[in-house]
Amino acid sequence: MLSGLKNYPLDLSAIVTMADDGSSTGVLRDELGVLPPGDVRQCLVALSQSPKFLRQLMNYRFTAGGLKGHSFGNLFLAALEKMTGSFDKAVDMAGEILRIDGRVIPSTLKQVELIAELAGGKAVRGEERIYHADLSHLRTLRLAPRATANPKAVRAIGAADAVVIGPGDFYRSLMPNLLVSGIPNALRTSRAVKIFVCNLMTKAEHTRNFTVEDYTRTMESYFGGKFDYVVWNTKRPSPLALKRYARQGDAFVEFGKKLPGRKYIAADLVSRRAVKILKHDPLANQRTLIRHDPDRLAKLIFGIVWQEG
Amino acid sequence: MLSGLKNYPLDLSAIVTMADDGSSTGVLRDELGVLPPGDVRQCLVALSQSPKFLRQLMNYRFTAGGLKGHSFGNLFLAALEKMTGSFDKAVDMAGEILRIDGRVIPSTLKQVELIAELAGGKAVRGEERIYHADLSHLRTLRLAPRATANPKAVRAIGAADAVVIGPGDFYRSLMPNLLVSGIPNALRTSRAVKIFVCNLMTKAEHTRNFTVEDYTRTMESYFGGKFDYVVWNTKRPSPLALKRYARQGDAFVEFGKKLPGRKYIAADLVSRRAVKILKHDPLANQRTLIRHDPDRLAKLIFGIVWQEG
Repeated sequence: MLSGLKNYPLDLSAIVTMADDGSSTGVLRDELGVLPPGDVRQCLVALSQSPKFLRQLMNYRFTAGGLKGHSFGNLFLAALEKMTGSFDKAVDMAGEILRIDGRVIPSTLKQVELIAELAGGKAVRGEERIYHADLSHLRTLRLAPRATANPKAVRAIGAADAVVIGPGDFYRSLMPNLLVSGIPNALRTSRAVKIFVCNLMTKAEHTRNFTVEDYTRTMESYFGGKFDYVVWNTKRPSPLALKRYARQGDAFVEFGKKLPGRKYIAADLVSRRAVKILKHDPLANQRTLIRHDPDRLAKLIFGIVWQEG
Repeated sequence: MLSGLKNYPLDLSAIVTMADDGSSTGVLRDELGVLPPGDVRQCLVALSQSPKFLRQLMNYRFTAGGLKGHSFGNLFLAALEKMTGSFDKAVDMAGEILRIDGRVIPSTLKQVELIAELAGGKAVRGEERIYHADLSHLRTLRLAPRATANPKAVRAIGAADAVVIGPGDFYRSLMPNLLVSGIPNALRTSRAVKIFVCNLMTKAEHTRNFTVEDYTRTMESYFGGKFDYVVWNTKRPSPLALKRYARQGDAFVEFGKKLPGRKYIAADLVSRRAVKILKHDPLANQRTLIRHDPDRLAKLIFGIVWQEG
């Protein structure tokens, strides 16, 4: 979405979850005590106006030796944080080097862990473990220790004309921002138009059978407010792609019921572009093949902002 | 010297030794099979016109975990080489990102090892081992396998108005360039003014008791030609600094005898700037405290080039 939106005359701020602890990011958190660079890196790359090779370099993942599994961009952010002593400064400097359009803002500057509390009292600790866990009996998500919002994030939400939530991994990428103390309140009190972009596919064990209605309700329950717009996709992906997802228990998101007071925007939002398999990046291969088309989604979002502005 | 010269209206090419195998560079060569980034990184940083924090980042060294000991700039070059499949391209891209003034040219694109053959048939293999070895009975230095010159290096030497050799680690940084097949011949046949900048201090076990004369003769013997100019320093460093060096057996370079046919330029070239101790970089702490003043050396070199041009 960001890579599409950067082509419009918008002043963008991307507020990024700090609960990531998988893979390269997890190792850097453990070994160097840095804040999680992974999601920040992806937003920086999406907003970057620098030459393609620099963006590719940021996503390059080492495949051997002691560096195995590390993406270069994560090392870049970790080195900047260690050098400056501040993750916030590191992200700003990285944005300058990558000539990004807009700002990338960590939702909190605290070291936090995502915790999923399940019915029956069991808890799953850590974003990577939650990824593999069965959340069908999820009671609530929280961060530990309790995290307060980065003031920059609160200000950006307060000053925004529009706030867009989604698409993305529902419990691991989108939700953790709403678990940061100060963010839900900033959202509720902001005069920004609140837009929810619903995911294309459910995730087995996490959002099995979720309809657009379920996604919307659940997200709203975590910030205690209502969306003004719900954007959802009507186009079914190819049977081949659906079959591939079905093997993991993932399925197309059906609409469900309309909730009163929200404007619904239905559109064909599925990307037709074949996803490039990055030979050097085994992680990338696992990433979603059914994706939003960045340009069509951005055009639609810009249309809403324009109309409301 | 490069950081001084970049402030003059000169078209600079830095030809860099590829024999480095110590520390971070050695690990990257072993584990990833890349060409040695260490010396290239230092030249890139010296020629960079980018903001100071970016140059500092390139020299930042990780201090913990699996990344311990790696300088960020080395990882940067290694990732670029793996991504593009070519060290040459990687160096060009790095130069673009760091907005360098001029060019950095690896002297060869072969994986080579520096070998010191000692009297009595013993050989020391590898630049890092040579650093610690006693070379007082050095017979000859060579590279294995035999390396041919990077055509870009040969062209740069052929087209140059002036070629400057030194200052730097005599056997490990300066000499290996002359061991690359094609480089000595390029030097001999080039119409460039050939300038030798003699080191300030001898190195025990390597160049003990070397005078300016010894340095000049030895260097000339490796390329089979004569220098037009020999630049040497007349200013004795402080007794405190000299004492510190004396503990390791290193001493001030005395002049010795004039060799006929070379123009000698004597000057006070010792930097007065206190060398900053980089907290994060234990390697940097070991580096020379008695250094050439980049600005005075560059002014002198520019004077020669200007006069000859």
